[in-house]
Amino acid sequence: MRRFVKKTSYKAGFPPGTLVHIGEKKTETVRISYLDYDYSNIHENVVDSIEECFPLKDTHTVSWINIDGIHRVDIIEKIGKQFDIHPLVLEDILHTNQRPKIEDFGNYMYIVLKMIYSNENNEINSEQISLIMGENFVISFQEIEGDTFEPVRKRIRSEKSRIRKMGPDYLTYALIDSIVDNYFIILEKIEDKLDLIEDEVVSSPTPDVLRNIHSLKWEMTYLRKSVWPLREVINSMTRTESNLIQESTRIYLRDLYDHTIQVIDTVETFRDILSGMLDVYLSSINNKMSEVMKFLTIIATIFIPLTFIAGVYGMNFEYMPELEWKWGYHLILSLMFLTVLTMVVYFKKKKWF
Amino acid sequence: MRRFVKKTSYKAGFPPGTLVHIGEKKTETVRISYLDYDYSNIHENVVDSIEECFPLKDTHTVSWINIDGIHRVDIIEKIGKQFDIHPLVLEDILHTNQRPKIEDFGNYMYIVLKMIYSNENNEINSEQISLIMGENFVISFQEIEGDTFEPVRKRIRSEKSRIRKMGPDYLTYALIDSIVDNYFIILEKIEDKLDLIEDEVVSSPTPDVLRNIHSLKWEMTYLRKSVWPLREVINSMTRTESNLIQESTRIYLRDLYDHTIQVIDTVETFRDILSGMLDVYLSSINNKMSEVMKFLTIIATIFIPLTFIAGVYGMNFEYMPELEWKWGYHLILSLMFLTVLTMVVYFKKKKWF
Amino acid sequence: MRRFVKKTSYKAGFPPGTLVHIGEKKTETVRISYLDYDYSNIHENVVDSIEECFPLKDTHTVSWINIDGIHRVDIIEKIGKQFDIHPLVLEDILHTNQRPKIEDFGNYMYIVLKMIYSNENNEINSEQISLIMGENFVISFQEIEGDTFEPVRKRIRSEKSRIRKMGPDYLTYALIDSIVDNYFIILEKIEDKLDLIEDEVVSSPTPDVLRNIHSLKWEMTYLRKSVWPLREVINSMTRTESNLIQESTRIYLRDLYDHTIQVIDTVETFRDILSGMLDVYLSSINNKMSEVMKFLTIIATIFIPLTFIAGVYGMNFEYMPELEWKWGYHLILSLMFLTVLTMVVYFKKKKWF
Amino acid sequence: MRRFVKKTSYKAGFPPGTLVHIGEKKTETVRISYLDYDYSNIHENVVDSIEECFPLKDTHTVSWINIDGIHRVDIIEKIGKQFDIHPLVLEDILHTNQRPKIEDFGNYMYIVLKMIYSNENNEINSEQISLIMGENFVISFQEIEGDTFEPVRKRIRSEKSRIRKMGPDYLTYALIDSIVDNYFIILEKIEDKLDLIEDEVVSSPTPDVLRNIHSLKWEMTYLRKSVWPLREVINSMTRTESNLIQESTRIYLRDLYDHTIQVIDTVETFRDILSGMLDVYLSSINNKMSEVMKFLTIIATIFIPLTFIAGVYGMNFEYMPELEWKWGYHLILSLMFLTVLTMVVYFKKKKWF
Amino acid sequence: MRRFVKKTSYKAGFPPGTLVHIGEKKTETVRISYLDYDYSNIHENVVDSIEECFPLKDTHTVSWINIDGIHRVDIIEKIGKQFDIHPLVLEDILHTNQRPKIEDFGNYMYIVLKMIYSNENNEINSEQISLIMGENFVISFQEIEGDTFEPVRKRIRSEKSRIRKMGPDYLTYALIDSIVDNYFIILEKIEDKLDLIEDEVVSSPTPDVLRNIHSLKWEMTYLRKSVWPLREVINSMTRTESNLIQESTRIYLRDLYDHTIQVIDTVETFRDILSGMLDVYLSSINNKMSEVMKFLTIIATIFIPLTFIAGVYGMNFEYMPELEWKWGYHLILSLMFLTVLTMVVYFKKKKWF
Repeated sequence: MRRFVKKTSYKAGFPPGTLVHIGEKKTETVRISYLDYDYSNIHENVVDSIEECFPLKDTHTVSWINIDGIHRVDIIEKIGKQFDIHPLVLEDILHTNQRPKIEDFGNYMYIVLKMIYSNENNEINSEQISLIMGENFVISFQEIEGDTFEPVRKRIRSEKSRIRKMGPDYLTYALIDSIVDNYFIILEKIEDKLDLIEDEVVSSPTPDVLRNIHSLKWEMTYLRKSVWPLREVINSMTRTESNLIQESTRIYLRDLYDHTIQVIDTVETFRDILSGMLDVYLSSINNKMSEVMKFLTIIATIFIPLTFIAGVYGMNFEYMPELEWKWGYHLILSLMFLTVLTMVVYFKKKKWF
Repeated sequence: MRRFVKKTSYKAGFPPGTLVHIGEKKTETVRISYLDYDYSNIHENVVDSIEECFPLKDTHTVSWINIDGIHRVDIIEKIGKQFDIHPLVLEDILHTNQRPKIEDFGNYMYIVLKMIYSNENNEINSEQISLIMGENFVISFQEIEGDTFEPVRKRIRSEKSRIRKMGPDYLTYALIDSIVDNYFIILEKIEDKLDLIEDEVVSSPTPDVLRNIHSLKWEMTYLRKSVWPLREVINSMTRTESNLIQESTRIYLRDLYDHTIQVIDTVETFRDILSGMLDVYLSSINNKMSEVMKFLTIIATIFIPLTFIAGVYGMNFEYMPELEWKWGYHLILSLMFLTVLTMVVYFKKKKWF
Repeated sequence: MRRFVKKTSYKAGFPPGTLVHIGEKKTETVRISYLDYDYSNIHENVVDSIEECFPLKDTHTVSWINIDGIHRVDIIEKIGKQFDIHPLVLEDILHTNQRPKIEDFGNYMYIVLKMIYSNENNEINSEQISLIMGENFVISFQEIEGDTFEPVRKRIRSEKSRIRKMGPDYLTYALIDSIVDNYFIILEKIEDKLDLIEDEVVSSPTPDVLRNIHSLKWEMTYLRKSVWPLREVINSMTRTESNLIQESTRIYLRDLYDHTIQVIDTVETFRDILSGMLDVYLSSINNKMSEVMKFLTIIATIFIPLTFIAGVYGMNFEYMPELEWKWGYHLILSLMFLTVLTMVVYFKKKKWF
Repeated sequence: MRRFVKKTSYKAGFPPGTLVHIGEKKTETVRISYLDYDYSNIHENVVDSIEECFPLKDTHTVSWINIDGIHRVDIIEKIGKQFDIHPLVLEDILHTNQRPKIEDFGNYMYIVLKMIYSNENNEINSEQISLIMGENFVISFQEIEGDTFEPVRKRIRSEKSRIRKMGPDYLTYALIDSIVDNYFIILEKIEDKLDLIEDEVVSSPTPDVLRNIHSLKWEMTYLRKSVWPLREVINSMTRTESNLIQESTRIYLRDLYDHTIQVIDTVETFRDILSGMLDVYLSSINNKMSEVMKFLTIIATIFIPLTFIAGVYGMNFEYMPELEWKWGYHLILSLMFLTVLTMVVYFKKKKWF
Repeated sequence: MRRFVKKTSYKAGFPPGTLVHIGEKKTETVRISYLDYDYSNIHENVVDSIEECFPLKDTHTVSWINIDGIHRVDIIEKIGKQFDIHPLVLEDILHTNQRPKIEDFGNYMYIVLKMIYSNENNEINSEQISLIMGENFVISFQEIEGDTFEPVRKRIRSEKSRIRKMGPDYLTYALIDSIVDNYFIILEKIEDKLDLIEDEVVSSPTPDVLRNIHSLKWEMTYLRKSVWPLREVINSMTRTESNLIQESTRIYLRDLYDHTIQVIDTVETFRDILSGMLDVYLSSINNKMSEVMKFLTIIATIFIPLTFIAGVYGMNFEYMPELEWKWGYHLILSLMFLTVLTMVVYFKKKKWF
């Protein structure tokens, strides 16, 4: 079973705001990169120490700092100091069991999301993405280096793209959009699994199929837990009165909101389909079993009366006239054959075969 | 299984607002037609290029431009430029996996709907209809050429109809109304299928029936997904403060809203009925099986004691007085007959037959 | 199966506001009657043509015009013209598949309700009642002549009744109240059926009982569909700001609202009880089957070892010492008897009988 | 089955506000008593005619008039006239099928409640309590004489109790509180029954247990119907803007509200537990049956091959070498014994015993 | 079964505000301790009588008085008098069956919570914690001496901790936080149990496993009952307009709120998983049973025809040619062997093994 609580409880006892990384350490090194751009210029770099990014804070360009790997508490702490981030936010970045949420701190917004990906065993897994959006910067924290944000980077690099004309709110939107797009890819994979199970459920309803259905059901529960609050996050971004979100970006957020609703709709539909499959599975199992039992019982039922007849003429009474008849044996054999025939016809008529 | 996600995910990676047609290409050619009318005049035409429709934009008459086939990105783009439509709307028109929704852009409204029709295999299918309603025009986009809007066209052509006296909001209402009317036709067909299944569920509860029940259940899920948001669409049209909707049209929208509620009610009722049928199905199956087993077991139970009796007198003891009795054999046969009789009477009394 | 959609779909294609009677034609003739009263005077008449009622419009007395039979489109149309009723209201009166609703048109209110009655086959059926309440008149439309409103008529005729002192709003209340009272009568009948089924479910759980449970369940679904929106109707009447409803009538409406809640409560309780019965039914069926199987299997199990023993001494070995013992036969018979005894005692102890 | 509708429907046909007692007549005589008190004085009396209580209306003390037995319409009518109570309230007092509710008439409040008690058959039953609270009086109506209010009386009699210092709103609170306390006693009894059933459900899952589970489930439905609206009653008392409720009393009402929530919580928990028990019951039944069938089938399966072996050597072929062997019989017996052993070991290994 | 009501009902009959300890007496002695601190100073003491704490009321430092053991009514009463606490609050402290709630009395707030811990039998249990937060003091009441608050004490003792810089609202937050952290520990333990059951459910689905599933389900119900209202408590603390809660503390409360949501999410997920396990359990049981029955029936089915053949040649007809054949016996044996072979092959092909 997937563990739901383990990692969370380690925190118990620490005072709130204590910066300790809680969760699996998914990468060894920490990779810090930035992308600084406005309509006409773009600077891109991978840096060794976070301090190199600090000058970006005071430029008027949009600065996107991306941190892959969150286990280095000192880096998070330095960013916190430099960009004046609340200690609880830093704590939330480090604890990888957050529920998706958005928090408005006036001069910056903090957004936590879950990126869903399927690991090498084809199981669904999630990575926590934290975004801090300020007036002229976005800082993103990923647990491991991934290529989810690559399309966004490409668009920034292309000179005429819309993203270059707009602010950090649009960048944030683009990042979240790329995460939501990922959900569709996962859903497609799940749909493939559903297709597979659907066939098996009728053709070979083994206990494995049941286990698969249940593991998919749990994956849906898992997905639901990430995507329902995500919807709330995007909804409150759309409706926020904060001036960090430009009017022109809101329509894109609304579009994003529609996509999230689609994800939720699909998740709920899949859950429905899974329950349906469970019904079909149980019914198939039952059906198969019934067939076997029926066949076997019919065999038994046909032979038991025959055995009885044989038993009668196996009795040792001295006076059993039939025994001495010349054709007695053949007569009895014929009688038996007739009995079988009658029963088979009767069963056929009753459609028990 | 109907695919729910496949087409959607292709978009992943494209920047938002990229105009790419996503979905099945359901028609080869694109048919553009327009209907321009006011109370006294009417012009109707099928045109080769979209540019021929552009002069309509500046007339004071109501202009309805209808596009059948949405895979020609260039046409959509030109309309977008000419009528000043937001790129995200154009994207939504091209992506045929939208949820029904309404969006108010101030000087025009964008409405997406699902037209439900049953294809040649008698399966439910849906087509995406997009409507753009401006101050003096309505542009409708259909995936394929259909005759759903034909009754509306007829009413426009008839000189004294109410539609000729009213604006594009009423035209929009009439178009949506014709789509909702279609739902009733589909529901009627589904009801026919339900009637059919209802009979089979008791008379011949085969696994096919189960599969039919589940496929109908999924169709209901499918319908639900189109019709619940439709209700929201019409509701917000009724309550909008936009001055694109005249006061006199609102009452018609309210009526339409009632129809949508009826559709939803019926869908929910059908779902209830289907669950009920599932129960009856499972119970029928069980019943049938039980009957067979009971019959067979009764046969076995009657003959097993008889076989035992025969077995007793088949033993080879030297001193078995009964064997030498003159009527021993007939006595035993009578005993057996009596045993059968007793059991049959007992079973009858217990109502096991 | 009760049809839910059939009649509805015929409308598809007609423009909204087209006056066509949709639904079963339940009566041949149309009966028009009126009752015109104030505190001191009362006029009552059955008239041949609707025009005779028109003068009532301008009197200051309360005028109640009742139309039994709604298939005569011309009558509805004339009323519409004379009393200045919106065409969509007229359409709703003619279409007998409305959901209960209330609509406020400023100078009059339109209310649709479902009257529930049980037909000759003891099945639940519904009739659509439309009420138009103006400043000094109420027009009621029934599908067939019925005696539901008779008690109200009696109260109007009696000189000192409260109804004579009050306006058309109170009359409307009284009419709806008599319809709601009818629900209780129907619920009582359903309760009788429930009582009957409850006994059968345990004593003789035949498939018929299952069918009865499901048909009752569908009746509950049917009732629910009429009574839930009715509650909304009465609630919005109670809370309306329209000055068609006097303050003094509101308390009566609140009382009516309570009754509707009681109906809903009872319907929900019955649904609960039906699910409970379904459980008991399935369990009873199962129980009965198990009992049979157990009995039969026990019989078989007792005789199979005995048959084996008989089989042993039916073998033809030359050297079988027991066969030559004088009391061998009796010994074996005793052994068999002992075996049976042991098994019966064992089964008894295990409580398998 | 408990009847839910019967009594209700008798009313059908009567005009609203008609004073007729509807419901079981639970007591013969009507007992009228009053308690008139302020901080320093207290008068208590049982009177023969209601007129003796009327002078209390104009005193400044708190007057509590209690009527046990509500079938005497004339008494109710007189009270109505004297204290200026709305006819619909009087009707509600007489009809014992009210849902708990509160109604504010400006100068008095009307509250209906259900008192739950368990009758001699240990079944849950309810009695309707009506309370009318005015500026300086409380009138309570009970269906039968009971001792539920006795603790309240005692507290009033004790000179220093808080109730003596406060107004009729606090008295009303105290009366409702004593009714809610009663719910806990009932819940305790139900919990005892649950404990009993819990044991039986595993040890002896007879159909009786099933019936008990379902009857408890219905009792919970019954309780729910009284207690959910009760919560609303107390909630609106707490939040009312009426000046009949003093600020100082509100905190007590809030406390009472918490108690009601506890009752609801417990009822819901019990419902959950009951569903759980149903599952365990069905599983126990199934388990028991399976065990029996398995045992019996194993017996049969062991003996059938043995019988076959015996049958082989019971054949009458002339040339069967084994038959003439000296130790043939013993060999075969040993073979049989071995077969049994092998099978038993195999079954044991497979854990089928 | 865990008792839900017992203790509650003892109160029935007492007037509200009567100070009686209701609930299990979990400790003998009562331990009173206090911690008085501001940014620079700290006093800590265990005192014998509550009066020693009273001077703390008028200091400007934050004073935290902790009472372990609530059965000494006199102590509670004295605190009530000294700190001017409402009698109903004192009653709620003494009655250990409260639902978590918060009440704002203007100059102080009263908060009740449930601390969850698992007892020596590894069963979940709860202790009631009451907190009274005033302008410069917090009084906490625990049923027994525990170490839940120890981490908070440690943080207070450490000179530079945030808690020393902030007020009683932050202290209250810290106390609640330590209780919520405890929930995670409990959830972790439950998850361990779930893991255990998950394995057993497939490998050895005994009735014990079912009982474990149900007992876990009830534990979830129990947890839910404590944690859902807790969420409301923290939510209303976050949104309160009371000036007892500083703006700077609110963000910590919001964080705490997120944790509570996580607890709720996990509880709901566990409930889902448990239902899934129930399905798997029932299916496993069924599967196992089916396997046994199938095997046994196959054995029987194979031997019954053989026994019949043997029976035929055990008949005593005088003229049975086969009996006299030299190789008759061996032929028949071969025939029997062939029959077995055919059946085994057939069964294999049908995958019934």
